[in-house]
Amino acid sequence: MTIKSADLLVLNGIVLTMDSIDTQIKNGAVAIKGKKIVAVGEVDEFLSWDMSQTIDACEGIIMPGLVNTHTHFPMSLFKGLADDLPLQVWLDEHIFPAEEKYITPKSVRIGTRLSCAEMLLSGTTTCCDGYFFEDEIAEAVKACGIRSVLGQGVIDFPAPGIPDPKNNISSAIVFMDKWQAAASTINPSIFCHSPNTCSTQTLKKAKAAANDRALLFQIHAAETKSEWDQVWSQHRASPIKYLDQIGVLDQNTLLVHTVWVDDDDIDIIAKRRAKVSHNPESNMKLASGIAPVPDLLKADITVGIGTDGCASNNNLDLFSEMDTTAKLHKVNTLDPTVMDARTVVQMATTGGAAAIGLDRQIGSLEPGKEADLIVIDTKNPRLAPLYNPISQVVYAALGSDVRDVIVSGKIVVRNHKLLTIDLDDLLERVGSIGDTIKRELTKK
Amino acid sequence: MTIKSADLLVLNGIVLTMDSIDTQIKNGAVAIKGKKIVAVGEVDEFLSWDMSQTIDACEGIIMPGLVNTHTHFPMSLFKGLADDLPLQVWLDEHIFPAEEKYITPKSVRIGTRLSCAEMLLSGTTTCCDGYFFEDEIAEAVKACGIRSVLGQGVIDFPAPGIPDPKNNISSAIVFMDKWQAAASTINPSIFCHSPNTCSTQTLKKAKAAANDRALLFQIHAAETKSEWDQVWSQHRASPIKYLDQIGVLDQNTLLVHTVWVDDDDIDIIAKRRAKVSHNPESNMKLASGIAPVPDLLKADITVGIGTDGCASNNNLDLFSEMDTTAKLHKVNTLDPTVMDARTVVQMATTGGAAAIGLDRQIGSLEPGKEADLIVIDTKNPRLAPLYNPISQVVYAALGSDVRDVIVSGKIVVRNHKLLTIDLDDLLERVGSIGDTIKRELTKK
Repeated sequence: MTIKSADLLVLNGIVLTMDSIDTQIKNGAVAIKGKKIVAVGEVDEFLSWDMSQTIDACEGIIMPGLVNTHTHFPMSLFKGLADDLPLQVWLDEHIFPAEEKYITPKSVRIGTRLSCAEMLLSGTTTCCDGYFFEDEIAEAVKACGIRSVLGQGVIDFPAPGIPDPKNNISSAIVFMDKWQAAASTINPSIFCHSPNTCSTQTLKKAKAAANDRALLFQIHAAETKSEWDQVWSQHRASPIKYLDQIGVLDQNTLLVHTVWVDDDDIDIIAKRRAKVSHNPESNMKLASGIAPVPDLLKADITVGIGTDGCASNNNLDLFSEMDTTAKLHKVNTLDPTVMDARTVVQMATTGGAAAIGLDRQIGSLEPGKEADLIVIDTKNPRLAPLYNPISQVVYAALGSDVRDVIVSGKIVVRNHKLLTIDLDDLLERVGSIGDTIKRELTKK
Repeated sequence: MTIKSADLLVLNGIVLTMDSIDTQIKNGAVAIKGKKIVAVGEVDEFLSWDMSQTIDACEGIIMPGLVNTHTHFPMSLFKGLADDLPLQVWLDEHIFPAEEKYITPKSVRIGTRLSCAEMLLSGTTTCCDGYFFEDEIAEAVKACGIRSVLGQGVIDFPAPGIPDPKNNISSAIVFMDKWQAAASTINPSIFCHSPNTCSTQTLKKAKAAANDRALLFQIHAAETKSEWDQVWSQHRASPIKYLDQIGVLDQNTLLVHTVWVDDDDIDIIAKRRAKVSHNPESNMKLASGIAPVPDLLKADITVGIGTDGCASNNNLDLFSEMDTTAKLHKVNTLDPTVMDARTVVQMATTGGAAAIGLDRQIGSLEPGKEADLIVIDTKNPRLAPLYNPISQVVYAALGSDVRDVIVSGKIVVRNHKLLTIDLDDLLERVGSIGDTIKRELTKK
């Protein structure tokens, strides 16, 4: 008999594999060797294995780390700076001026670490970002140990780090080439801001640059009625139809929001096999509208869940976002069966992984996949009794119930403690930036 | 100079008083003597005071304990038992049979303690319940140390503890008289299930019994389209109009849900000065609809927030409910200004207190009020930076960020630890009931 071995065994938990047949193991374990999962099964199957390290899940839930398909990391610095305002006032009078004045390479690093800290501690192991100074973001993300798809922002206006928009695509190309060569848990991408803030030429060039490198092309699309109106008045087409007409929709395109879409738009998205990032809380808070996610899923479109940036949510907690996703579509359709808990967890794991092009690596707990997983502590009144772990994850668990987090085989959170970031030091730096912003804004 | 004294000073926090002019104190403190607040002010004002005990809020947020205006305590035992089902299937095939078989005096005590544990740990200091075996509930609630309004259930069907509905009102009267005489933090009440499950005579008698004692009359009203249809077909009036016609609407009536109400109904509620409990997450999860809360508030109706029972939410966390309230009405009206964070916190504190008739005792931090308050730990990435504490409470904080909880001057949660309940013992009992229910349901 050969002695099998692994570096790490996470055991004694209910394992939600999120594999294609939704396998759940009541008293299960996940064995990890290097960066990969090598086995998933009943605890008993591992009795004879040789293990370097074990993590006892204490009858909690072991599941894939969550995938956040849309964020703007540094905007965590503006969390709660301005709320409950009309979208254009919020953007023009608060967010854009704050970005212009306070988004620097240094603040971007700090804001990114703040976002990564919040996400890791609440069970997100992969996130898809789109912003500026993305190279600074990548360096900070790498140190935090979260897996990511990072899109350098492209917009036809002066932007942080890109005073002359003529350089927006070339900057993105430099970023993509650097990080593609690095071959790490950081996957570069390009992020065009929206169909009404990038010209047709910019969109086409950006998509071509992404396709040349087989990388993800991200874009906010059909988020608000006003965007829809602008695109219509300029191109006599809906945002989705316009993007299709100029040839930027394919399986490596991630459409973020898709609130203002009709049946024809949905047909186009399905036909092009483009992916969707659903950000319900941001769409609610900014009063943008409700994306027709049940219809998207019926059309067999891949949908992941995102939190959006922290200034428009105001948190990066995918547990809250799952709960909202499940409930919002029920009330919107007056049908309680339209969006069950399993569908929602699938969107937050395998669906999200597929939406950002990482489904072969992550999203489920299966041998051969990267070891990205979390342990949920169920020993508290919020999560007892436990009839159905999937239901508990969606409707009862909080991000703060996540006890341990493993990314790429490395333990990054253990017993609610973040191992990759000095949190006291980070919170001091964040507090100091916040104090400056608050002081200067009050001065006005 | 007289030395002033207090039993307990909670200091070094941002104090959100939620008084009528929304006073916030940056580096504030709350002094407590016996069960009451005796002073609220800047920390410096208390330097010369003689204190028996202090709690350092460590620059966190000190605010009134939250008020949950609608729950069914023992249903926490059915949390996640059945989800994502049509309402009638959920009720008839899952909840009613489970109640019939598993709701006993013993399970009611355990389910109540489970609910109280979850609520206290997430910052709720007062809750309004309606269920059966309410005397058992009251004994359990008393031991947990949460303030409450408890309504003995009245329904014209056999119910737990009331096999013959002929005794429903008399049982409620016995309950009300016993607990009114006890004069404690438990405030008795009567809870009629709904306009379509209680006869006109039952509703009138129940309201008369409450009015004779100047106690709260609670009723689910206009929750679902099917209830509306039933009431209409029987009485040719909307549920609200019907309840008004039979004379049960006045300032001591709490209408729970009010989803299916039109402008005429709103006028009636306003005119009668009846109160409303808004339960957005339950209404979303059961796909009942969205209550027109902005319109209710415009009509100057007192609205509090509730979680509903744990089987239809599935949590009792008012922080989550506040976040949902703020976001849901924005997206429902496509107006981001329609429900600001301050309005939501007000509904969860002073509004809730007024909705259940306790506004003279609780809801705000002011001298003379009962000392019900909580401390939120803001030293974590979710709550940094901190520009606007009200915004942070609604959009970023989780129930698990509540560090300390004081009810009626007594510390019930300290450093996230519940002092009134043996949690390990409770979770073992809850687990055992859950295992039985699960085993027997699987057997079928």
